[in-house]
Amino acid sequence: MRLGFIGLGAMGRPMASRLLGAGHEVFVWARRKDAAVPLLESGAQWRASPAEVARSADVVFTIVTYGSDVESIVFGAHGLADGFAAGAVLVDMSTIAPGLARDIARRLEERGVAMLDAPVSGGGTGAAAGTLAIMVGGEAAVLARVQPLLEVLGRTIVHVGGNGCGQVAKACNQMVMVAAIEAVAEAMRLAEAAGVAPGKVRAALQGGSAGSRVLDLFGGRMVAGDYTAGVEARLHHKDFGLIAEEARALGVPLPITASVAQQLNALMARGWGGDDTASLLRVLRLN
Amino acid sequence: MRLGFIGLGAMGRPMASRLLGAGHEVFVWARRKDAAVPLLESGAQWRASPAEVARSADVVFTIVTYGSDVESIVFGAHGLADGFAAGAVLVDMSTIAPGLARDIARRLEERGVAMLDAPVSGGGTGAAAGTLAIMVGGEAAVLARVQPLLEVLGRTIVHVGGNGCGQVAKACNQMVMVAAIEAVAEAMRLAEAAGVAPGKVRAALQGGSAGSRVLDLFGGRMVAGDYTAGVEARLHHKDFGLIAEEARALGVPLPITASVAQQLNALMARGWGGDDTASLLRVLRLN
Repeated sequence: MRLGFIGLGAMGRPMASRLLGAGHEVFVWARRKDAAVPLLESGAQWRASPAEVARSADVVFTIVTYGSDVESIVFGAHGLADGFAAGAVLVDMSTIAPGLARDIARRLEERGVAMLDAPVSGGGTGAAAGTLAIMVGGEAAVLARVQPLLEVLGRTIVHVGGNGCGQVAKACNQMVMVAAIEAVAEAMRLAEAAGVAPGKVRAALQGGSAGSRVLDLFGGRMVAGDYTAGVEARLHHKDFGLIAEEARALGVPLPITASVAQQLNALMARGWGGDDTASLLRVLRLN
Repeated sequence: MRLGFIGLGAMGRPMASRLLGAGHEVFVWARRKDAAVPLLESGAQWRASPAEVARSADVVFTIVTYGSDVESIVFGAHGLADGFAAGAVLVDMSTIAPGLARDIARRLEERGVAMLDAPVSGGGTGAAAGTLAIMVGGEAAVLARVQPLLEVLGRTIVHVGGNGCGQVAKACNQMVMVAAIEAVAEAMRLAEAAGVAPGKVRAALQGGSAGSRVLDLFGGRMVAGDYTAGVEARLHHKDFGLIAEEARALGVPLPITASVAQQLNALMARGWGGDDTASLLRVLRLN
């Protein structure tokens, strides 16, 4: 199939690479062409603008950082919307506000273009291995058309509901994951203050009801003192802004989510936004 | 081996039963004898006081709710300390303050009796299946003596450090587990407020980085609206009192732990202390 892919960062590059590897034609554009070079060398084809990507492809994937990025890639000058033929599909895998996802879907629908919001969880490792969890909002019939493509990228593909519902699920995912990272950080901090080896504590907890992927992965990084980014903390900080706005708009009290957001603010203030979110432990050390 | 077992509640009863099933002689005492009846029918032997239990056994297990319970069972009138022979071992599997565990160990040591703090995680299900996580504080040589007994009860047995360290690990376990329950509750609450099916969100999250035992178990109860206690929330509320005191004494800031403690206070105020901690979702509904 002829596919477009925009957003060749830590997540997008391995994802686009998997689609190429599965035998699809992949057309790419990037703000900085050098981000595309490894993919071009593997057979992806360069296009001069998002519009040109849309003209070349039946299905276009986007995975960028901000909602404003998605909007300008779709509706900006030489945007995807200028190039899409009726019947095309946009699969936006970025993490953006649910309301914005619904809005973009509605505007594209007027042009006969379908959209799915399909944000992911699983990090760079999951992207490379094709084991991402993909949370899909949009029409079931549209999902059915792109399902085989999503199966190249992810292991768990859940149709959560209509447009925007994938983004709500992703917000929930981030709330649960980053709160777990903060909780593990607080536990590690208490252990070290009490003179107990954090590695022993992590090992003891893994077998019980507190066991989780976060304890394995981020707990492991904390024990090792390795703050090299898997996912950069600034991205979680961004996500918590979306979550806070969603909760405010809906009038829902989220006490520990709010507390996690403050710890992420403190992390950013310490200049650790480019490091791993395991840095929440360092925030608690106050030194 | 001749074993004593005191504390025949939701956890202790299946644990004592497994020790009996493994071929040991088990001597029991309980404040209310009816709590012991099923075990006595399976071959356990009644003793008239903790002191009598200690006189009959080489190793005594205790698993009760409060630190004050442990203290009175050990050092109260007709307590274990009155009956222990030198060389006996007390394995306290209750969840109590680390400092109190150290204190009891020190006082017993003066009488030639060894103690391990060995609190557990895994709930009634883990107790019945013998798959508990056991977090051990105390001397390695003492642990070595009782290791085969602990292996009847648990699958993960981690020697965390000296006396009190098992209790520190358990505090960490509760911090991580109950914060995860609260985070899942907040995610579910946001999802339902946004009109998204919480069951779909849970399914979507299970495959990604937010996956955990808490999401499986407590998330499942929230989706089903089933608040029947696995572990009663009042016990977690009690544990968070110990954690707060430990953090205060050590001067460690634990922001989301403090926030979880407040939500547990609200849960208790609603009269749900005998229900499951999944009730944290109901606290967020404010109705």
